[in-house]
Amino acid sequence: MAPRRKKIYEGKAKVLYEGPEPGTLVQYFKDDATAFNAQKKATIEGKGVLNNRLSEYFMTGLTNIGVPNHFIRRLNMREQLIRQVEIVPLEVIVRNFAAGSISKRLGLEEGTPLPRPIVEYSYKNDALGDPLVPEEYIIAFGWANQQDLDDIVSLALRVNDFLSGVFYGVGIKLIDFKIEIGRVWDGDFMRLIVADEISPDSCRLWDIKTNQKLDKDVFRRDLGSLTDAYSEVARRLGVLPTNATNIKPTLIN
Amino acid sequence: MAPRRKKIYEGKAKVLYEGPEPGTLVQYFKDDATAFNAQKKATIEGKGVLNNRLSEYFMTGLTNIGVPNHFIRRLNMREQLIRQVEIVPLEVIVRNFAAGSISKRLGLEEGTPLPRPIVEYSYKNDALGDPLVPEEYIIAFGWANQQDLDDIVSLALRVNDFLSGVFYGVGIKLIDFKIEIGRVWDGDFMRLIVADEISPDSCRLWDIKTNQKLDKDVFRRDLGSLTDAYSEVARRLGVLPTNATNIKPTLIN
Ligand SMILES: Nc1ncnc2c1ncn2[C@@H]1O[C@H](COP(=O)(O)OP(=O)(O)OP(=O)(O)O)[C@@H](O)[C@H]1O
Ligand SMILES: Nc1ncnc2c1ncn2[C@@H]1O[C@H](COP(=O)(O)OP(=O)(O)OP(=O)(O)O)[C@@H](O)[C@H]1O
Ligand SMILES: [Mg+2]
Ligand SMILES: [Mg+2]
Repeated sequence: MAPRRKKIYEGKAKVLYEGPEPGTLVQYFKDDATAFNAQKKATIEGKGVLNNRLSEYFMTGLTNIGVPNHFIRRLNMREQLIRQVEIVPLEVIVRNFAAGSISKRLGLEEGTPLPRPIVEYSYKNDALGDPLVPEEYIIAFGWANQQDLDDIVSLALRVNDFLSGVFYGVGIKLIDFKIEIGRVWDGDFMRLIVADEISPDSCRLWDIKTNQKLDKDVFRRDLGSLTDAYSEVARRLGVLPTNATNIKPTLIN
Repeated sequence: MAPRRKKIYEGKAKVLYEGPEPGTLVQYFKDDATAFNAQKKATIEGKGVLNNRLSEYFMTGLTNIGVPNHFIRRLNMREQLIRQVEIVPLEVIVRNFAAGSISKRLGLEEGTPLPRPIVEYSYKNDALGDPLVPEEYIIAFGWANQQDLDDIVSLALRVNDFLSGVFYGVGIKLIDFKIEIGRVWDGDFMRLIVADEISPDSCRLWDIKTNQKLDKDVFRRDLGSLTDAYSEVARRLGVLPTNATNIKPTLIN
C-alpha cells in the first residue's frame, strides 16, 4: 500500500491532501453534509462519490470551452487531482433567480427571475457566517483588487452561461451557484482560475417543469433523499454508468 | 380560413411572411435542403418541423440567459413568429474544432481542436458563394462598423458558451455553428440581436463518444438519414414529444 498522503486541510465537505507533485493537491470528497454554517449536520451515503464525479464533469466541460480551472484528473471514486491555488477568500455567487439569502434580504419570492444575472460576494469566514460584502470592502481590505474583480466577474458569467446551457439541455433550471476562485502563478504572471467544486452542493437546481429541487436545499429543508436528488442530476447528465445503487456502501472508498 | 399572408422572401430553407403586427414576421421552415451553394438539393421529409422546434428551443434558452434574439413564439409545426430585423449581411461563424472550410483552407484534419474559439465572417452573397471576409473588408464596405463587430463577437461567444453547455449535457460536441445578426431600433437606439435560425442545419454536431455526425454534413456527404440525425438531437434534448415518427407525412403542415 502506498504511504498515506499528508493531510493539508479538512473542511466540512472535503479533505485536501498533499499531491504527488509540487503545485498539486488531492481533493477527497466526504459524505458529510452541513448547512446553516454547520449547525445542521449529517452523513449522506454516496454524496462524496457523486460530487467527485459531477465536479469532474463540470470542470472538464469548462476546460473544453477554455475556462481555466483547478481540475487535473479524477483519481478514484472519491478523489481528484487538482492544481493547488491560493484561494481568494470570497464565495462568488451568481444568481439567475431569487432564492435563499437574496429572497430573504429583499423579500423576493423564491423563483422570481432577476433582471439580469447578479454576481455577489461573501467573505469566506466561518466565524462570521460568510457575510455578504460589497466590492468596496473587498478592495479596501485587499482580498482582491479591481482588476481581479473584473476578471472574476468575467469568469463567473462564462461559467453561468455554460452551466445554464448544460442544465437547460437536461430540463433543469440553474437558480444560482457559488464558485471559489484561486490564484496561480506562471513565473511572475498571476492568473485567476476556478477552484473548489461545482456540484449540487454548490448550485441551486430546479426541475424546469415541476420546480422540484435537485440540490442541497433537499437536505437544508428536509425535502427527501439527497442522494436521490443528486443521482437524478447525474443520471440526466449521463455522468454515472447506471443508477444510485452504484454508489451504495460496497463501492464507497 | 384566414387570408394567406403576404410572402416577403423565399430562401433555400425558409420562407418569410408578413407578420400579424408591424415589426414582426412569420418564419416558415421548409423541408428543402441545399448544400455547396445550392448545387446539391433535396427534400427531406420532416426537416422543417424539426428545425422549427429546435430553433425555438435554442432561442428560448438564449432569451433565458439574456442573449437578445428575434424569436417571439412558435405558431405551429412549421412556423414561428419572429421580430423583423435588418440583417447584417454576414454569416457569423464560431469554430471550436476544425471542420469544413477552415480544414481545407489550413490543411487541418477535421476534429482538430482550435487554440481558442475562432469567430469569422462570410459575406452573405450567393452569387459570390458567401466568401470569407476579414474585418477590414466589413468595415471598409460599411456592412458593419468596429463597434458592431465588437458587439457581434460578444454575442457570438456567449451563444457559443451556452450552446457548448447544452450539447455537452447531452453528449454532443459543438464543432462550429453559424448565426446571423440583425439590427432593431428602439427609437434612435440601435441594438444587435441574434436572428435567422439555430438548428442542425447551422451547426456541426458530433457525438462525443463516437464522433458520429448529427448535422447537415449527413446530407452534404451522404452519410445516412438526415431526419434520423436531427431527430436524435431533438430526442436527446427532450424537444420532441416522442420519436421521429411524429414528424412523418401525416403531420406535415
Ligand atoms: N485548488 C485548490 N487549492 C487550494 N485550496 C482549495 C482548492 N480548491 C478548494 N480549496 C479549498 O479547500 C477547502 C475545501 O474544503 P471544504 O469545502 O470542505 O471546506 P469548508 O468546510 O466548506 O470550509 P471553507 O469555508 O474553507 O470552504 C476549502 O477551504 C476551499 O477553499
Ligand atoms: N428576424 C429576421 N428578420 C428579417 N430577415 C430575417 C430574419 N431572420 C432571418 N432572416 C433572413 O431570412 C432568410 C431566411 O431564409 P433562408 O435561410 O432560406 O435563406 P437562404 O436561402 O439561406 O438565403 P440567405 O443567403 O439569404 O440566407 C435569410 O435571408 C435570412 O437572412
Ligand atoms: Mg467549502
Ligand atoms: Mg439561410
